[in-house]
Amino acid sequence: MGKFSFTLGPVHLESHEEYVMRYWWVNHKQTIKQEIGGGYLWSPQTEAGEKRSQFYENMRRAAPGDKIVSYANGLIRYVGVVQDFARVAPRPPEFHELGRQWSEIGWLLPVEWMPLEEPVRPKDHIGQLRPLLPDKYSPIHSVTGNGNQKAYLAEIGPQTFYLLVPSTPMAFAPNPTQGQDALVQVDDALQRVISTDQSLDATTKRQLILARHGQGQFRSRVMSRYKSCWLTGVQSPGLLVASHIKPWRACTDSGERLDGANGLLLAPHADRLFDRGLLTFEDEGRASVSPELPPGELDRLGLAVACSMSREHFSEATCEYLAFHRKNVFLS
Amino acid sequence: MGKFSFTLGPVHLESHEEYVMRYWWVNHKQTIKQEIGGGYLWSPQTEAGEKRSQFYENMRRAAPGDKIVSYANGLIRYVGVVQDFARVAPRPPEFHELGRQWSEIGWLLPVEWMPLEEPVRPKDHIGQLRPLLPDKYSPIHSVTGNGNQKAYLAEIGPQTFYLLVPSTPMAFAPNPTQGQDALVQVDDALQRVISTDQSLDATTKRQLILARHGQGQFRSRVMSRYKSCWLTGVQSPGLLVASHIKPWRACTDSGERLDGANGLLLAPHADRLFDRGLLTFEDEGRASVSPELPPGELDRLGLAVACSMSREHFSEATCEYLAFHRKNVFLS
Repeated sequence: MGKFSFTLGPVHLESHEEYVMRYWWVNHKQTIKQEIGGGYLWSPQTEAGEKRSQFYENMRRAAPGDKIVSYANGLIRYVGVVQDFARVAPRPPEFHELGRQWSEIGWLLPVEWMPLEEPVRPKDHIGQLRPLLPDKYSPIHSVTGNGNQKAYLAEIGPQTFYLLVPSTPMAFAPNPTQGQDALVQVDDALQRVISTDQSLDATTKRQLILARHGQGQFRSRVMSRYKSCWLTGVQSPGLLVASHIKPWRACTDSGERLDGANGLLLAPHADRLFDRGLLTFEDEGRASVSPELPPGELDRLGLAVACSMSREHFSEATCEYLAFHRKNVFLS
Repeated sequence: MGKFSFTLGPVHLESHEEYVMRYWWVNHKQTIKQEIGGGYLWSPQTEAGEKRSQFYENMRRAAPGDKIVSYANGLIRYVGVVQDFARVAPRPPEFHELGRQWSEIGWLLPVEWMPLEEPVRPKDHIGQLRPLLPDKYSPIHSVTGNGNQKAYLAEIGPQTFYLLVPSTPMAFAPNPTQGQDALVQVDDALQRVISTDQSLDATTKRQLILARHGQGQFRSRVMSRYKSCWLTGVQSPGLLVASHIKPWRACTDSGERLDGANGLLLAPHADRLFDRGLLTFEDEGRASVSPELPPGELDRLGLAVACSMSREHFSEATCEYLAFHRKNVFLS
């Protein structure tokens, strides 16, 4: 957030925090068409057996405005600008059978892609690239120049980036307004999957789709647990959002999507912060604000006082969902 | 808002404002099936030639918790509870050819309906009803007991209501959690109409659907007009909603749905108030808060100070949309 107002290189934010733009290289697998067409990158959160992978961790390190080269089959054919922080999201339905070996829940990073006029073959530049490539987590082999099969999203320096794509057009500036499109499309696709799921009856389908918007049975259940906004105390039902703690798109089944214990009642601004990972709650009820929220915004939102107050402990079932939120949604 | 916490009869709100529950009688036309099934009432705003109609004005007077008897073909077969204030909405697409004579834009009142175990024929009770019926705007003729062809939503007293449906089950209590469902369904139906409109190209369709969620081209255009939330000054793009002034569902064409001048950049809580008609703006930029917002809520939302500040004059094109908002959306 608030990291959008630069063009190139390190910039000073209003708050005088330094923000360093990062440069990335993605080694697409078979899903390049879906990712480029859909305006995103998607990866699992971990390798098989929950093994940590730096290439997947990098999905969470990428920030709005960062730049990416897209590599597949020996060629860089697209460059992209990161539009928003990665969000927890299921394997996109348009992958169909591709990537069935991956876990169902991963990171979706919204990216605006544009094609290069001339594709670039990194292998042709391996002599110049070699000293710039990192020892660990390199996207290509520094001797052969072949793609590293294990790599997905790898960090490269600005020098590497501009060596590969020196004349990147400046229409290529970050455009934060497109960031949500990829998520809306993923949710729409997921909704189509639910609509055509033969194992679900019509009522459940309807309730699952209403739950996407925090409506229907899910909302009723959340409203029966809470009387007012957990953070602000706002009481008017029309001003309260029944927010999923474990996001709708990340739920593993209908049970989680419709579980009242997976909900919090929040005023719209608190809901937005919670959804974007800029706010979370501890088991004992206290709010935690992300360091990614630019200074001053909490005051402008009118939430500074509410965030400093103590509250009751959450129920056990809710604490499990909150643990997911703190681990996977909150930007710590 | 805040009118949900009663069971029967006049109640005292926290603020000691008196809220009187109203009782209504609707004379359904051919669209009873759609209205009962969809959980709403829909009427045009005016009669042909923009002639004012008390029966349509009543749509805006109905408030959450009010009770309604549904009358068609001589029988009362359903009772309903109003779920939310009426919202400006197009003639529901599921009406198809029915009501083509009506204007495209009207009021949608969310209602939860339930069937009576035994239908009631008011004509059988006309002797008892006669002294209770109003002289003006009566839903049935006080002599013949036949339905008044001109009536749509007519106010009746509690005596009339309980004379007709004396043993209304109390599962019939207001359930404010269902209020949004009808609107989501209307928007979904409208989206299907757009998706299948042969006169629109694929790009425009995609942009119109993204605009429903305040995304895509519409958002880009609004973001190019404003740098921060008009009300609070919040700056982070991820916390800002590109809100339609004339609502997406009420726009008459693609031009209005994608017009940047029909947008305001608002923080999520300000957006919610604006969408629900609890907040509007004067041409000179100042906020107006609706008397329907319960006292204390503006403070709890953290918006009391922001609402008292003066601002710049809006552009001429935006003022036209604001006039629509003040007339049709704002709860004055």
